[in-house]
Amino acid sequence: MPLLVIGTLAYDNVETQNDKREDLLGGSAMYCAVAASLMRKPGDPGPRLVGVVGEDFRKFDLEALQGLGIDTEGVEVAPGRTFRWGGRYEPDWNTRHTTFTELNVLEHFDPKVPEAYRDSRFVFLANAHPAVQERALDQVHGKPFVVADTMNLWIDVALDDLKHLLKRVDGLILNDEEARLLTGKSNLIQAAHQVLELGPRYVILKKGEHGAFLMGEDVHFSLPAYPITEVIDPTGAGDCFAGGFMGSLVRDGDVSPAALRRAMLFGTVTASFCVQGFSIETLIPRTADHLQARYEELASICTI
Amino acid sequence: MPLLVIGTLAYDNVETQNDKREDLLGGSAMYCAVAASLMRKPGDPGPRLVGVVGEDFRKFDLEALQGLGIDTEGVEVAPGRTFRWGGRYEPDWNTRHTTFTELNVLEHFDPKVPEAYRDSRFVFLANAHPAVQERALDQVHGKPFVVADTMNLWIDVALDDLKHLLKRVDGLILNDEEARLLTGKSNLIQAAHQVLELGPRYVILKKGEHGAFLMGEDVHFSLPAYPITEVIDPTGAGDCFAGGFMGSLVRDGDVSPAALRRAMLFGTVTASFCVQGFSIETLIPRTADHLQARYEELASICTI
Repeated sequence: MPLLVIGTLAYDNVETQNDKREDLLGGSAMYCAVAASLMRKPGDPGPRLVGVVGEDFRKFDLEALQGLGIDTEGVEVAPGRTFRWGGRYEPDWNTRHTTFTELNVLEHFDPKVPEAYRDSRFVFLANAHPAVQERALDQVHGKPFVVADTMNLWIDVALDDLKHLLKRVDGLILNDEEARLLTGKSNLIQAAHQVLELGPRYVILKKGEHGAFLMGEDVHFSLPAYPITEVIDPTGAGDCFAGGFMGSLVRDGDVSPAALRRAMLFGTVTASFCVQGFSIETLIPRTADHLQARYEELASICTI
Repeated sequence: MPLLVIGTLAYDNVETQNDKREDLLGGSAMYCAVAASLMRKPGDPGPRLVGVVGEDFRKFDLEALQGLGIDTEGVEVAPGRTFRWGGRYEPDWNTRHTTFTELNVLEHFDPKVPEAYRDSRFVFLANAHPAVQERALDQVHGKPFVVADTMNLWIDVALDDLKHLLKRVDGLILNDEEARLLTGKSNLIQAAHQVLELGPRYVILKKGEHGAFLMGEDVHFSLPAYPITEVIDPTGAGDCFAGGFMGSLVRDGDVSPAALRRAMLFGTVTASFCVQGFSIETLIPRTADHLQARYEELASICTI
């Protein structure tokens, strides 16, 4: 039962205190699919990716994704340039400035879920306009387990669409700032409760270096971040969290409280690998053994 | 093997968004001793308290502490007024403004550890000038398990004294801001490693609503805060954390990694009760059953 991931593919320019990189492979769905691909069992199909790129999208980037077992049939090539984003991080990593955004082919993106993907039992709606997320979801058959991401922009400009979407998803994944903006509650436990009242059965609240928690009808689980001492580039960490989380659920074929807890750990693990390099450079070489070792280290830090 | 607590007793004025209270019983050692008193087994002696108060210290406050089993023989009554502090919290609780500080009898405080206390096997040096903390420690016999607290002020104005003290303590407990100031590292894992290089075997790093972690030679343990949805007054929460932590070690008579992990949970539990009321009003009525119930709830949130 493969994972369907719908969202953006991008080229990013990233500036950190120590380095500056251009034309990095990026995008919410790309990061999520790569992280999820690391979670699959040998022989299992890889994540199915739906998104749009421009004619400038590099063949070797597509091949790199395919090499990880990602199904790219759903990646549409549209006339024009790929979505581009630039960001600069303050030395403390807590503040990110967007230096530019070129929507390019994303401007008229209308997700087309290939017929072969419509039986997916797990769906991740990576960050996009909530109406676009919902149009994608409309194309999936049956009752998959659906988790959505969002961002401040959509809470500001498309709140009604977002609220409509939230009635149809099983989980919402968001960070502390987004949770406060969406609910008006500064207390994150109150904010999580309020998100649950908007429809989802589960809310996954990410707090960066402070870890994450999951709250829902039958589970409340909180865990720290993996202790990283040197961050290289945090871009994509949240999407990698989502990819590890969803990939773990797919691997277990299960959304029980135990499976959700395990998924929170694997999300933390894939996010931790992500921030140790630019783009997906430190994710690509990871094996199941690498992930398992870090999972066990994290578990030992959490175990009473 | 009772706990010895050395530090301040105070009267506090506290302003929050919703309320304003004056002449609240406060002080680092007072909060710590109260939290630790809740942890003791029936029949065990309560914490031993060393500090100074003025002639204005209310008899019923002393009796309240004694009623919790706290040994107040070490509370010196000096001519003059009790140390007084005023603080105002921003609505998000993350910012605290000190509205006034009157040192009063604290100005010339020279801790005197009663002869009967000098065999204590567990010592908590609550926040005070590090030279004062060390003078207190000098009076304790043998090799107790010693944990110290500190604050930004001493890192700024008495760094050499603090570094001298750190070579003599087993643990240092501090918050994220203090850890960053002491080490110059914004990454808290790096900061914790650096604190360990200054001497202590263990560092306990508190992150408020984001929980705490303990790092040391044989243990690394991280846990979330207890999920409180309504904070009334966070004053003393850090000292109550220390009291629950030390009280748990005393109760176990043990500083093994398992005991340290348990102590981190009990510290979190006592701190959570503290913030639900002003001063010690929500701590005093807590029974061992209340603490155990919240311990188990917190454990369930942390368990993979």
